[in-house]
Parts: sequence; structure tokens; C-alpha cells
Amino acid sequence: MARNGFESSDDVRHARPLKHAQQVTFHEPLRLELGGSLREVSVTFETYGRLSPQRDNAVLICHALSGDSHVAAHDEADDPGWWDILVGPGKPIDTDRCFVICPNILGGCRGTTGPNRIDPGRGRPYAADFPAITVGDIVEVQRRLTAHLGIERLMAVVGGSLGGHMVLTWATRFPQQVAGAIALATSARLTSQALAFDVVGRNAILRDPAFQNGDYYDQGHGPIVGLAIARMLGHITYLSREAMMQKFDAQRLQPRDVQTQFETKFSVGSYLAYQGDRFGERFDANSYLTLTSAMDLFDLGETPEKLRATLARATCRWLLVSYTSDWLFPAFQSQELVAHLIGLNQPVTYCNVETDCGHDAFLLPDQIEVYGDLVHSFLVNLQGSGRPIKDGTPPELPEGGLGTPEHTSIFHHDRLDYETILELIPPDASVLDLGCGTGGLLARLRARGHQQIMGVERDEKAILCCARRGLNVVQADLNRGLPAFTQGQFDFVVLSQTLQTVEDVSRILHDMLWVGRRGIVSFPNVAYRRRRIELAEQGRAPRVQGEDGFHWYDTPYLRSLSIADFEEFCREQGLVIREQIALDTEADRRVSEDPNLNADVAVVVLSR
Amino acid sequence: MARNGFESSDDVRHARPLKHAQQVTFHEPLRLELGGSLREVSVTFETYGRLSPQRDNAVLICHALSGDSHVAAHDEADDPGWWDILVGPGKPIDTDRCFVICPNILGGCRGTTGPNRIDPGRGRPYAADFPAITVGDIVEVQRRLTAHLGIERLMAVVGGSLGGHMVLTWATRFPQQVAGAIALATSARLTSQALAFDVVGRNAILRDPAFQNGDYYDQGHGPIVGLAIARMLGHITYLSREAMMQKFDAQRLQPRDVQTQFETKFSVGSYLAYQGDRFGERFDANSYLTLTSAMDLFDLGETPEKLRATLARATCRWLLVSYTSDWLFPAFQSQELVAHLIGLNQPVTYCNVETDCGHDAFLLPDQIEVYGDLVHSFLVNLQGSGRPIKDGTPPELPEGGLGTPEHTSIFHHDRLDYETILELIPPDASVLDLGCGTGGLLARLRARGHQQIMGVERDEKAILCCARRGLNVVQADLNRGLPAFTQGQFDFVVLSQTLQTVEDVSRILHDMLWVGRRGIVSFPNVAYRRRRIELAEQGRAPRVQGEDGFHWYDTPYLRSLSIADFEEFCREQGLVIREQIALDTEADRRVSEDPNLNADVAVVVLSR
Repeated sequence: MARNGFESSDDVRHARPLKHAQQVTFHEPLRLELGGSLREVSVTFETYGRLSPQRDNAVLICHALSGDSHVAAHDEADDPGWWDILVGPGKPIDTDRCFVICPNILGGCRGTTGPNRIDPGRGRPYAADFPAITVGDIVEVQRRLTAHLGIERLMAVVGGSLGGHMVLTWATRFPQQVAGAIALATSARLTSQALAFDVVGRNAILRDPAFQNGDYYDQGHGPIVGLAIARMLGHITYLSREAMMQKFDAQRLQPRDVQTQFETKFSVGSYLAYQGDRFGERFDANSYLTLTSAMDLFDLGETPEKLRATLARATCRWLLVSYTSDWLFPAFQSQELVAHLIGLNQPVTYCNVETDCGHDAFLLPDQIEVYGDLVHSFLVNLQGSGRPIKDGTPPELPEGGLGTPEHTSIFHHDRLDYETILELIPPDASVLDLGCGTGGLLARLRARGHQQIMGVERDEKAILCCARRGLNVVQADLNRGLPAFTQGQFDFVVLSQTLQTVEDVSRILHDMLWVGRRGIVSFPNVAYRRRRIELAEQGRAPRVQGEDGFHWYDTPYLRSLSIADFEEFCREQGLVIREQIALDTEADRRVSEDPNLNADVAVVVLSR
Repeated sequence: MARNGFESSDDVRHARPLKHAQQVTFHEPLRLELGGSLREVSVTFETYGRLSPQRDNAVLICHALSGDSHVAAHDEADDPGWWDILVGPGKPIDTDRCFVICPNILGGCRGTTGPNRIDPGRGRPYAADFPAITVGDIVEVQRRLTAHLGIERLMAVVGGSLGGHMVLTWATRFPQQVAGAIALATSARLTSQALAFDVVGRNAILRDPAFQNGDYYDQGHGPIVGLAIARMLGHITYLSREAMMQKFDAQRLQPRDVQTQFETKFSVGSYLAYQGDRFGERFDANSYLTLTSAMDLFDLGETPEKLRATLARATCRWLLVSYTSDWLFPAFQSQELVAHLIGLNQPVTYCNVETDCGHDAFLLPDQIEVYGDLVHSFLVNLQGSGRPIKDGTPPELPEGGLGTPEHTSIFHHDRLDYETILELIPPDASVLDLGCGTGGLLARLRARGHQQIMGVERDEKAILCCARRGLNVVQADLNRGLPAFTQGQFDFVVLSQTLQTVEDVSRILHDMLWVGRRGIVSFPNVAYRRRRIELAEQGRAPRVQGEDGFHWYDTPYLRSLSIADFEEFCREQGLVIREQIALDTEADRRVSEDPNLNADVAVVVLSR
């Protein structure tokens, strides 16, 4: 959606014919999950790019509620697609390398079998007789299509919102057929708030006198008022409050001149009236009822146990993305999925992209450089590092060179402790790096052949770096508690130069020794000789290693501690120090004599 | 609203007659702000308690969109009122002490002149001919009522949401008639998001075929479907997402058995259907259109300059309360008002009450101990400290004795620096205390006769203490920037034992010297002899004064600094140290020789 105009990426396209659409009909009856069946199913779809001889580059795109098969323009003369920012030659989903398939979904109104299509058994539209369907039914039809196209295994399934529900269903029902799952702005189920908005929208349609119990195709028009009301409501939920302020606040009382029978007193009113009217021209109310009901019924697992059991079936690599200002599919819902996936030891990368665009963010160019890059890197890494990405250079960033050291604790120019930590970790050990930054340690571990490695990081740019390197990293703030790993999931858990930023030291140390058999902690020693002199002789607050750029008044570090402090703390907390290596990084040597005086960094191996 | 049932405090009361309601008719025509006029105006109202002989204890309560005059039960046999938690004998708005007046508002449908009342000029209901009104018109009618009751000056005007808009209008239009203004969950104007929800609700009514352009009173029923849709939508916006999760998530697919023509597939759906149907039985669609339009048009000032100019007319004391999970009238909107009020040097107390009840919070018992207490303390202080509050004891709390020292930086047991700070402030100086805690310093200043004193504090309980003491305190987190005081607004700005918790030291010091002519900063000195010994001889991270209960691993303090560090910083920043008093609080004496070694606390007077 253009942020300052009325046109949105999908509403400008009225129900024009889809020039490049293909159609296939499956004559085998489709048994539906809620009972009932469809005698045959037709699917309208579009494809982009070429299927490789190995048939291993197919990417299935699942559209959301009001989308269709026209995900991208096929050429310059073509109508815009609803995801042109993400799909096309040289785009994040690169149609020069991938074979993209986008079908209109079952129950939709743009060519695939749905309420507005002819029921072959009766020779007239299904209308009110179209059966209730589920996301599972939608995916089953998509699976017929991919089989028809000769694809046994999809390189990736991609979708946002309701499309994300399809991605989750694909990955957990047909694990052998999905190598990668990309789910944007989605959830294991709707929030009760989101569900409530759907209920109100459906009630507006159901109680519109023109609805006629769904049998309105013979009339002049269907329940366009109810459908418009539902769409207006939907539009509010797709935008963030901030986005609406930016769009409408300056000219609240200056509506656009819109021909409509809806209220246009306010600027935002004229916008909603326009969107509502346009939607009634291009969408079918029965499809709206069918698809929102399927979405509302979607639940990947009603309890944590069921959800985990469902996700446990997946064998793919995962990329999950949420958007900070999305209040319809709020970030905590993606984080719920991520929590289970990491507990299941499945390879997952997750980022909560900072944006004020709300739920619509996954369709908008704002922050495309973040989530587009995540999608692109994920697909490139799925295809194997042997193939070059589009600019022909490997996706590497300089170590610690993102230029924003002040925003995260982990961008130190010298990471001499890395080598020490690597020495302490035996070959093939599984490793979790808390506060992994741009992935320097993880990349070294992978180069050494470690298979089970994972990172946690709070900085978006650092996560992007890790993703480019093909590392699995989950965005989380350690000060809100460790993500939901399971007991003993890793051989080693590393907290490298991160302890000084942690609010609850006791909790994180105990947590890391619950998740890992061993913990490795490296931290700067405030009792290093030079620090002591600063305070004792110069009367200055001691500055810690790594604080070269920081002063007492601008350090982001919350804690300063000495080796002796840490030892005492471990004794009190019942934590066992199994090994301790003291470093003088200025002299680039290990320290054996009086480390609390002579070392500026300590690396400690802990166990319970 | 009961959190686990369907009944809400206002929906259980159908349109029963109001037993204790009185009515008065004003025959003087009412000229309306948007043009047009009403030939006469009738007002239905209820009163509680007795007007004092001095006529100085009247409290006007302004109801919100769907409220009425029945704010509280008059006796045990009476129907419940919509604000029984706040209004009654011994309640925060104590009808044993206050004379409470609650009128049904102009445009409403419960007795006061509105679309469903007889137009005296035509002998039938106004219906579609009821003119567009504003919040100003509503207040003008309330003003006629208070004049009729012989009240020249209201002790307080109280209201939440749309009722808060009336409070703001009263205080700025009739400043001489308002001693105290209590505005809960309100704003200078709606957000575009809130306005958009109103637009959708109105469209549902306007396009309901039964609406008949508003002339539906002769029909069997009015646009009850559209009104129900609007109410369902409203209900979603009154609740927080968290509240809806608690209410509906566990039993999403188990709807209550509700007789309705709306969808009841989901638990939340049956709730909305019930609420929508009930609302249609007791509320009038034309009133809904009239009042939501008045609310949507309300704007206390379209620009910051206009808003400030409007608020500048007020002469009352202010209490503003927002609720953290209120997304319909989000906290930033109350904070916008507060920012202007403090810039205007008006006496204001503000608290953002932590709750997950959403916009409805101001009507619910959750957290009533916080906002009820704020309201009660505010009214008691308005009535003057000479009168006892209900339990007969003065509202004092033990200094620093709230039992939660770990949540805020300012609860130190010994505040020897207070006496030093008091010595540094001349009599009658105006003082702003940043991080004022429970108001210890401010109370001492007031006892010494200072008139212009104010505090900023982030802790809710500490603010409650200040409010009980009758001190003006605004809730704000200094790490999000200083509230919007004006240049040179105070003679002195104090930052007492707070610097160590501040993220941006440079900004806060410069800000305080913009707001005040002088700044007074007290902070613990990390280079105090004992601290030097801890590090130099014992190899332990130095602990600062005030950290008696804290260790390196649990201190909430972000910074540690020495007197020498601070002096250097001031030099670099161009800040002038005009006076410096060094204390050895352990020995309870001032230090003159080598303070950086011998003092554990420094008190510094700064200027630019």
C-alpha cells in the first residue's frame, strides 16, 4: 500500500483477467477435513522461472486472505503483482534461479474452486452450498498441484499471515516435501482479538439483507455493504496506529473526494470508504466468509504439548519473521513457534523486524532490505553454498564491522577470547552462543565441522549477518529470559563478553547450565592491574576491557566484576568452575600468576 | 465488566427507569457550535450527598459514550451504578463529603435532550433532525445544570474517555468554575485508529436498511443490526489483547448458548453477539451517531501551539491517569496533555497505571487501589489539609518505606544529602526534583514554604505516596528524556542520587540546566577510600554508597563515577560547578580535604 495515497498494492487491481494464469482440474474427489467433499477441484495458478532438471528449485508461494495467483508481474507489460517487491528476476525470491508457483487458494474467488465457481454436480455456483474448509484442505489442493507439476520436494514454501498458516501446515504435514519453510507475520492460531474482528466482519456480511443466505449470484449485486464494512475493519487491523497517524493525522478533516454511500466526514473515513467499495468490486463475500472461517479455525496445536508434537514432525529449515508494529499477528506469536522449534532442535532463524507498518509490513517495501535479505540469504543457503548469489560474491561481512558498536555488546574489535573458547570446546560438540553477534564464533565452529550450532542475538543487523553466513540465529533479548531450549540440549553454552550486559546474572548462569552441560563465560576483569591503578592512584572509575570507546557516562555495560567476584559468586550459587583461563589481551598472553591482578579477561568453564 | 462472564457493569442494566433521576428543563434556546440551535433543553441527572453550606464540595461526573446519570446506587435496594467502585459513601469520590452530580449528556438517550426526545417545535422525536453537537455543547448544558443547582465553582469535574473530553473542555472554557480536573483514559483528540473504528461503526448503522435516514422511531425497531455491529467493534477496542486472551483463549471453540441471529461459532463470537444484542435493547442508534461524531470532532488543539494555548486558560489543579494497556486512548495521549500542562507550570499529577484491562480499566476494579487512591487523595487535598480524610489519619507514609527499594533508585534509608541540598536552595525558590521518589525532599521544601515545587518519578507506588502528600508529581522515565518543561521554568532542578541510573548523562545534565537556572546533583563517589581499597587491595569491584543491599550481579545502577570523573566531565561539557559539598556520610560530616578520596557522596551545584 502506498503510504500517502489511497491505492494499495492489491486494491488497484480490479478483477481483471489474469493473463498468465494456467488452470488444472483434478477429478479425484477431495474429502474435506470438516466432513463433506468436493467432486473435483480446479486450480488457477501462475509460474515464474524454470524448474531445474533436478526439480529442486521450486518455491511455492501461499497468498493471504485477499490475494491471488498473480504474485508478480511476468514482464514489463504485465499488471503489477501483489508481491513484486519480493518475487522476480534478481529479487529476494529470484525467478532467475527459482521456479516459483503461486496458486489461487481453495475457497478463493480468482479461478480456483470456490463459492463463486460452478458446482459440477449442479451446474450452478456453489454459493451457500460451498462446504466449510480448513487450511489443511487448502494445502492438500496445493499439494495436488505440485505433484501435477512433477515436484516431489519443494525447495521452499513461503507465505505471510494466512499464507503463513499454509506454510506451517505444509512443513508439519508433508515434511518430506519441504526443504525450507518461510513464514512471515504469522502464528500458530489467531489471537482472540484478531478472531473477534473476523467475527464482526462476518456478521456484517451475514446480516446484510443482500446476502440472501449466500445465494446472491443471481442478484444485481451481493452483500457489498457488509463486505465493505468487513474490509474497512480489516484495513484498520492491517495498519499500525503509527502508520495511521502518519497517513491521516495531519489532515483529519480533509477527506478525499470519493464517490461512495459511506461516511466521508473524515480523511480516514474517505480512505476506508474507498477501500471498502473497491473490495466489493473485486472480491466475493462467500469467499470472504469461507476463508476467514478457515483462518479462524486454524490451530496448529491447542496446547503447548500439542503444538510441539505437531511441529516435531517437521524436518525442514525454518525462517520466521515478525514485525514489531504488527498487532494483528503480534511478534509473541512468532516467538511461540520459535520457542518450540528451538526446543525441538530444529534449524531456525528468527527476526522481529523493526517497522511501524503493522501487519501489512510483509507486503510493503519498508524494511525490505531486512526481511528481503533474510529471505534471499535463506534461499541461497538452501540451494547450497556452492552456488553464487546474485552479485557473485559470498555474503560475508567484516567481523564486528557493522559500524554500530554502541547498540550491542558484542561488537568488539579484538576477540582474542574466541581462540581460547574454541580450544575449550571439543570437536563435534553442540554449541549455543548467547549474544552471538555477527556469528564470528559460530562461523569458526562451523568451519571446524561442528554440526549443531546456534546463536541468540538481539541486534537486527547482526542477525542479518548471521543469516547471510547461513547460521541459525534467533532474535531474543537475554534480559527477557533465555528462549525455550530444553534441558541438556547443547554440550556447550557460550556467554562471551555478554555477562556485563545481563540484568539477572544468576538466572542466566543457571539457565545456561540447564540448557548446556557446560557453560563458557568470558568477561572483562575490573581488578586488572591497570584498572586498580586508575581507581586507587588516579581516583577514576575503572574502565573495563572492551570499553575503549566508552566512558563512565556512556558505557552500555550494566556490570563490572573481578575474577575474584565471579569466583565467590559461583561458590555461593553452587556453580562449579571446571577450568579457568586468564588472559592479558594487551600482552596477548595467558596469565597464570595472580590472574585477578594480571589478567584483563577471564574465560571460565562452568558446570553444575 | 466481569472478567469471566458476559455481564458488564453497564450492560446488565437494561433501559429500566432511573428511580432517583431528576429532571430540569431550560427554556432558553441553546445555540450550537456547529450552527443550529435547540429551542429548549431538558437534563436528566442524579445527585448524591449534600451540597455544603459554602457550596464548595460539588463534584461533577461526566459519563462516557454509553453511560447515563446513574453513576452509583443510591441505596442498597437501588440498581447498580456504572461507577459504583469509585462513587459512594467512603469510596474514592466520597459522597459523605462531596455533593456528586451526574447528568445524562446532551445527545444521549437516557432522559436528557437527544434524538429520541420530543422536539417541542414539532411534537415528535427529533430523530434525523437532531442537530450535530460538540463536546462544547454538552458541557454548556452541564454548565446550565450546575448554575441551576446554585454552584458557582465545582470542586472537581471528573470523567474518563469521552467524559475526559468534557473535563478538558470544562477546565479550559470555564476556568473560574473548576477547582480540580480529573481526566482518566482520555486525550486531546482521538487517534486516527480510534476514529476509524468509529467510522466503521457509524457506517454499519447508516447503511442498515432499518436506519431509514434516522426516522425509525415509528418502526418496530431501529437499526439494531448496525448498532450491534458498532457495539461489537467498540467492545473489542475497550478490551486489551491480553484481557481477551484471558477471557476467551482457553475455550475458543466453546461458545455460550446465546439466543441471537449473529454468528456464535466461537466463544468470543457468542460474547460479542450477546453484547451487541443487549446494546440494541438499551441504546439509541441516533444517539450513538450523535455522540461518536461529537467525540470524533473533539480536538482540544489541532497543533501543539493551539493545544498549549487552550490549556493555558486553565487555572485548576489536574489529575491525569492513563492505563498501560489502553490502546484506544493510549498513554502517549495523556502524556501529550501532561507535557503541555507542566510546560505551562500548572499543578498536575499524572500516573500511567499498570494494568492489562485496556481502555475499560477506568471502569473496572482492577488497580482501583491505585487510581481510586489517586482520585481520593486529589479530592482530599483539594478540600484542604484541614479536613481529615475518611480514616481520620493524615495520609503519610514512612520515608522510603514502601518495601520495594529494588525497583527504584530513590529509596535510600539515609538521605543525608537532603539536608545539604536544602541548605543550597534559597527560600521561595522554585524546585523540580527529578527522581523524587516518595517526595521526601519535596515535602521538606513545602514545609519550608516553597510554593512552586514539582517532582518526576517513574515508580507507581512512589507517585501514590506523593499524591497522598498532596505533592504534584508526574510519572516519567528519565531515560526516555525529560518531560516538556520550558526554558528556565525552575530556579533549581535536583538530581539526587539518580545520576547513577541515567542512560544519557550528558543529555540529562544539559536538559536540567535548560529547565532550571541551577542544577543540584548528588551522587556516590566510587573513588572513596573504602572503594579504592576494595578494588586495589581486595581485588573486588567497588560498591557504591547506597548499594548496601546490592552486589555487582544485582545492582540496578548503570554507572559508577568518582568526583574527579564528574569534574572532568563538566569541564568537557562546558558545565560550571558553582559549589561542591563533599560528604562522608558514614562519619556524618563534611569533607574539605581531598574529597575524591575522603567523601562517599558529593553534592554539586551546576550552571551553564
